[in-house]
Amino acid sequence: VKYLFYDDYSEGAHAEILRAVSESNDGQDFGYGNDRWCELAADRISARLKADVDVHFVAGGTQANQISMASMLLSYQGVIAPVTAHLNVHESGATEATGHKILAIPSVDGKLVPDDIARVLASYEDEHTVMAKVVYVTQPTELATVYSRDEFLSICQYAKSRDLYVYVDGARLAMAIASPVVDLTLEDIAANADMFYLGGTKVGGLYGEAIVIVNDRLKANFRHYIKQYGGLLAKARSIGAQFARFFDEDDLWVKMGARSNENAAYLASKLDDIGVKLAHPQITNQIFPLLPRAAVEKLGTDYGFYPWGGETEPQMIRLTCSWATSREAIDEFVSDIAELNH
Amino acid sequence: VKYLFYDDYSEGAHAEILRAVSESNDGQDFGYGNDRWCELAADRISARLKADVDVHFVAGGTQANQISMASMLLSYQGVIAPVTAHLNVHESGATEATGHKILAIPSVDGKLVPDDIARVLASYEDEHTVMAKVVYVTQPTELATVYSRDEFLSICQYAKSRDLYVYVDGARLAMAIASPVVDLTLEDIAANADMFYLGGTKVGGLYGEAIVIVNDRLKANFRHYIKQYGGLLAKARSIGAQFARFFDEDDLWVKMGARSNENAAYLASKLDDIGVKLAHPQITNQIFPLLPRAAVEKLGTDYGFYPWGGETEPQMIRLTCSWATSREAIDEFVSDIAELNH
Amino acid sequence: VKYLFYDDYSEGAHAEILRAVSESNDGQDFGYGNDRWCELAADRISARLKADVDVHFVAGGTQANQISMASMLLSYQGVIAPVTAHLNVHESGATEATGHKILAIPSVDGKLVPDDIARVLASYEDEHTVMAKVVYVTQPTELATVYSRDEFLSICQYAKSRDLYVYVDGARLAMAIASPVVDLTLEDIAANADMFYLGGTKVGGLYGEAIVIVNDRLKANFRHYIKQYGGLLAKARSIGAQFARFFDEDDLWVKMGARSNENAAYLASKLDDIGVKLAHPQITNQIFPLLPRAAVEKLGTDYGFYPWGGETEPQMIRLTCSWATSREAIDEFVSDIAELNH
Amino acid sequence: VKYLFYDDYSEGAHAEILRAVSESNDGQDFGYGNDRWCELAADRISARLKADVDVHFVAGGTQANQISMASMLLSYQGVIAPVTAHLNVHESGATEATGHKILAIPSVDGKLVPDDIARVLASYEDEHTVMAKVVYVTQPTELATVYSRDEFLSICQYAKSRDLYVYVDGARLAMAIASPVVDLTLEDIAANADMFYLGGTKVGGLYGEAIVIVNDRLKANFRHYIKQYGGLLAKARSIGAQFARFFDEDDLWVKMGARSNENAAYLASKLDDIGVKLAHPQITNQIFPLLPRAAVEKLGTDYGFYPWGGETEPQMIRLTCSWATSREAIDEFVSDIAELNH
Repeated sequence: VKYLFYDDYSEGAHAEILRAVSESNDGQDFGYGNDRWCELAADRISARLKADVDVHFVAGGTQANQISMASMLLSYQGVIAPVTAHLNVHESGATEATGHKILAIPSVDGKLVPDDIARVLASYEDEHTVMAKVVYVTQPTELATVYSRDEFLSICQYAKSRDLYVYVDGARLAMAIASPVVDLTLEDIAANADMFYLGGTKVGGLYGEAIVIVNDRLKANFRHYIKQYGGLLAKARSIGAQFARFFDEDDLWVKMGARSNENAAYLASKLDDIGVKLAHPQITNQIFPLLPRAAVEKLGTDYGFYPWGGETEPQMIRLTCSWATSREAIDEFVSDIAELNH
Repeated sequence: VKYLFYDDYSEGAHAEILRAVSESNDGQDFGYGNDRWCELAADRISARLKADVDVHFVAGGTQANQISMASMLLSYQGVIAPVTAHLNVHESGATEATGHKILAIPSVDGKLVPDDIARVLASYEDEHTVMAKVVYVTQPTELATVYSRDEFLSICQYAKSRDLYVYVDGARLAMAIASPVVDLTLEDIAANADMFYLGGTKVGGLYGEAIVIVNDRLKANFRHYIKQYGGLLAKARSIGAQFARFFDEDDLWVKMGARSNENAAYLASKLDDIGVKLAHPQITNQIFPLLPRAAVEKLGTDYGFYPWGGETEPQMIRLTCSWATSREAIDEFVSDIAELNH
Repeated sequence: VKYLFYDDYSEGAHAEILRAVSESNDGQDFGYGNDRWCELAADRISARLKADVDVHFVAGGTQANQISMASMLLSYQGVIAPVTAHLNVHESGATEATGHKILAIPSVDGKLVPDDIARVLASYEDEHTVMAKVVYVTQPTELATVYSRDEFLSICQYAKSRDLYVYVDGARLAMAIASPVVDLTLEDIAANADMFYLGGTKVGGLYGEAIVIVNDRLKANFRHYIKQYGGLLAKARSIGAQFARFFDEDDLWVKMGARSNENAAYLASKLDDIGVKLAHPQITNQIFPLLPRAAVEKLGTDYGFYPWGGETEPQMIRLTCSWATSREAIDEFVSDIAELNH
Repeated sequence: VKYLFYDDYSEGAHAEILRAVSESNDGQDFGYGNDRWCELAADRISARLKADVDVHFVAGGTQANQISMASMLLSYQGVIAPVTAHLNVHESGATEATGHKILAIPSVDGKLVPDDIARVLASYEDEHTVMAKVVYVTQPTELATVYSRDEFLSICQYAKSRDLYVYVDGARLAMAIASPVVDLTLEDIAANADMFYLGGTKVGGLYGEAIVIVNDRLKANFRHYIKQYGGLLAKARSIGAQFARFFDEDDLWVKMGARSNENAAYLASKLDDIGVKLAHPQITNQIFPLLPRAAVEKLGTDYGFYPWGGETEPQMIRLTCSWATSREAIDEFVSDIAELNH
């Protein structure tokens, strides 16, 4: 196999991140995230967000979602999410394992609008039906679409008016923040959402995500939820060190998102040069080219990628670039496609 | 503060482990533990255990316990454990969060014997009472005691005769395996337990533990439980690399346990030199000296440690040495005690 | 208010059922369903079903569904159901409270076909996605449609071929069995489903439902699930007595369903006489007339019923008749409508 | 078998209760406890308790406990209870099934004192340990002991001072209230506990218990918990009718408790006449005679009862009288013992 375009976690950590882990390694400090690196990371994140937030570090994204849902929902409450949401599709029922229903909304582009939420709320009757309490959005979405600032704020305003919390799954948030076509900023999210997480794994982290709690009502005893769901790490300092580096003055976290996007843009442009069209314009680090089915099949022997959106002719495929995808790999891939198309 | 004797996770990773993480960092591989390092680590662990086991890597010990309990217990079944068990005391109800009762047994030394299990089974009546299905033992225990080979085998034989699974919490298993006074081997555990985990965090790992499944009936679909409880890491390769190194030919994992024990033995011997007695003989990396209460109070300003077993005169304290505890730190500590005792 | 057409549980118990409860009241017997009435009821149900089934009695329908799901699903498995399913909409997340996801399928008529199930199974990938294990069908459905014998058997055969259990929510099963247009029999269900419940509450019971377990693999320890979810009644004999009467030689249970249907048919015919059309033909005890919105509004002051299917002109409403609905109440209702339409 | 002294639910309902169910049977009313009988019962209970309480009716005691615990505890909180508590021993893990740990306290007499609670609270450290939030007491206890007014108030005061809720399992509360040696009144409980339930099943109810919510903070959305755990009955009117009768002017509920006690007192006195001693003085409707083991064995062929407290000579047994136990049955039983003792 020449290259895997499956996802953005097939490579290890960025060199700077690995160095940060090494540099934090020596000497003693307190366990369970009470160390100086976690503290430093939290301080830098707060400063970057310009908000008085609590920050907690956990190992993975599903864990971040599971713990967050457990903390925001009372026993009989549920979370509103598009059917395409990671939490609805790809977490093996982690939210339900905490006892909560996902109130899934049909969505063609992976996004929600206030009217979707209103429809769910309208379907609530009384104690026979699950009471919605959280709105779950992903930025960028699982379908690689993005919320504009206006779209996001309209959700937050509506949610607040109906006493709902807004939670943002930020597994690839760095890519959205870095995208020149997205006007929704980190500060906007921190000023309007109630809780969210900043993904580390997919932008060159070794492992780990940062849960950010904005709403004061949700801050107390949050560490109990982390512990209860197995997420409190004895040596969390290594995650703290990574996020302290990500949010150091050079804004590495956003840079990693930008580089991922640029690699995808480069790939898109090279594909365009040989006449391969995209089903949707490139926004972040995932693109969706249309190729003859015969070409797709042959490509599969040398490259890793997913067919997308059912069987059609031409066939849509998903290609994910990461911060680590090299121009050489992209050039070779495009050249191989060009040859196949002859 | 001069030194923390609180625990064995206040230091970072051992240099060899950090190097293994770095060396596994470059290039692409499959996500979610399907990479060559996790595979290599699993192979080496199987070979070391001389058993056809399944091996899975997760980030922490509470997570390992939570996922394992969820996988072994049907909805109405429970786990037998000493009241002192980590899973009963220090996991914030992680087992109960999966819906299962812990059938806790009084124990003065943190250990179980077959008669304890028999008593729990005798208290089972019918559908009104929780049916026991798993026996949870920790080696060494939370009270730093250990099971001998005979003791462990008698539990396993009894458990098997009553159709119970035996699970071993091995957070500090390396210390027990390395201890010259413990005759219970890794191979014994792999030949007789149904599931256990090999602790990495407390013996110089960066993070991560290895769950080992011995019983074939428990192997199918285990990854679903990992995912459902937020433990499946996209970049698990960094845990795989650590365990591949731990179980490389030089048996680093056991060596790290041995070094932790030796540091504790050195500390015990130095304390003995100045007339400080231990409440129990040193076996692994935790010792329990008896000191005048006044001395304990003064020591607390320069050193981190826990008082143990209630307020008494003299006061018992717990001192934990790690693989990284330096002889200098120990010498200074003992010298400071000697001075206090004057 | 003159009459409530809301549902079929607004009246008390049928006189024969109340008599059976009284007659079982005297003297001592064992608790928790181990009494002679529960035994008699189970025997009669088995005989009626011509199947070697286990029968358990619980207080209500949501409880029956919750306990059954808990018993059939492993921790990481889920249940396939139409989005309109009672268990998905009107049980306040009782299934999710047991930790399980409902894999909800869009459905316009409240029914499933094998292709729906196949689509859910096709969306299963691996440990990231919830594994389906149960197919949930309701007969008649929440939308008052019914499965024919062929339709039901095709689901069961497909489910069996994919190693899925079939569960039938039989809250109003008596009405479907009694309907002359439905060829699916109780014996068919008992021969092909894995578990189902026979509704008592909605056909003149005082309270209580009978869970029937067909599949031998699901029989062991089922009472543990009942107890664990609060369903084991100390004096279950009063439910046993009701079901012994329902399934006595005169087949009262089916008769009650038939009477409910006949009342609805009578109402439909009277409405037809005055020119009121139904949106769907009457099959069981619920009908869906179309009325001018103005008439609906006025009717609401004297009668209880639900508008159905959104706001339209004419407006669809749902009228439910029970075994206890009198011809006088129906005549008066139709006469009041006739007057409104002038 | 001549008579069962196993428990107080081996008989059906009291004639007055059955009549009340019959009298509430005719005509239509709203479902799910929104009917006039449930309302009447709630009003009468509030009046009797002289407190502004919410009252909800469910089918059984384990269900009452399970729903109440789910409603009072956040995800990471637990309930303090004596090890002997019904909720700890005889509910098949119903509390754990809602995700919560029972912090069980050793107790020889089935009772708690503030010091027990204090010890549990002292063992709480931080997010690693379960946070106690509810204190569970049973009146009378599972060991047939009782709390005096002072004992109960001292628990409530201490609990309040530590921000804990007090919950009373009142399965046999009528017997304690009716006992001449118990000075703790219903009004005391309603003035000091946060939530409790009034048992109906064991004092001549057909089925059903009444959950009483005292603390205003616990009232909102309680019906969601009932529904989520399968306890909301469509035809709850039949429970309402029973409790309306229990709490009618003649105070039938207390009378039934008194009659149960008197039957036990009569049995105790008759046993005393023939020289059979009790291990503990009779207080409510359970007594604990000491008999030669040989006599116990022979008695077992004609009577149902439980040996109690392990195998000893003489053997303690538990005899439970109900409101329905006849003097004839008692006389015959005592006469049979007298004969055995010759």
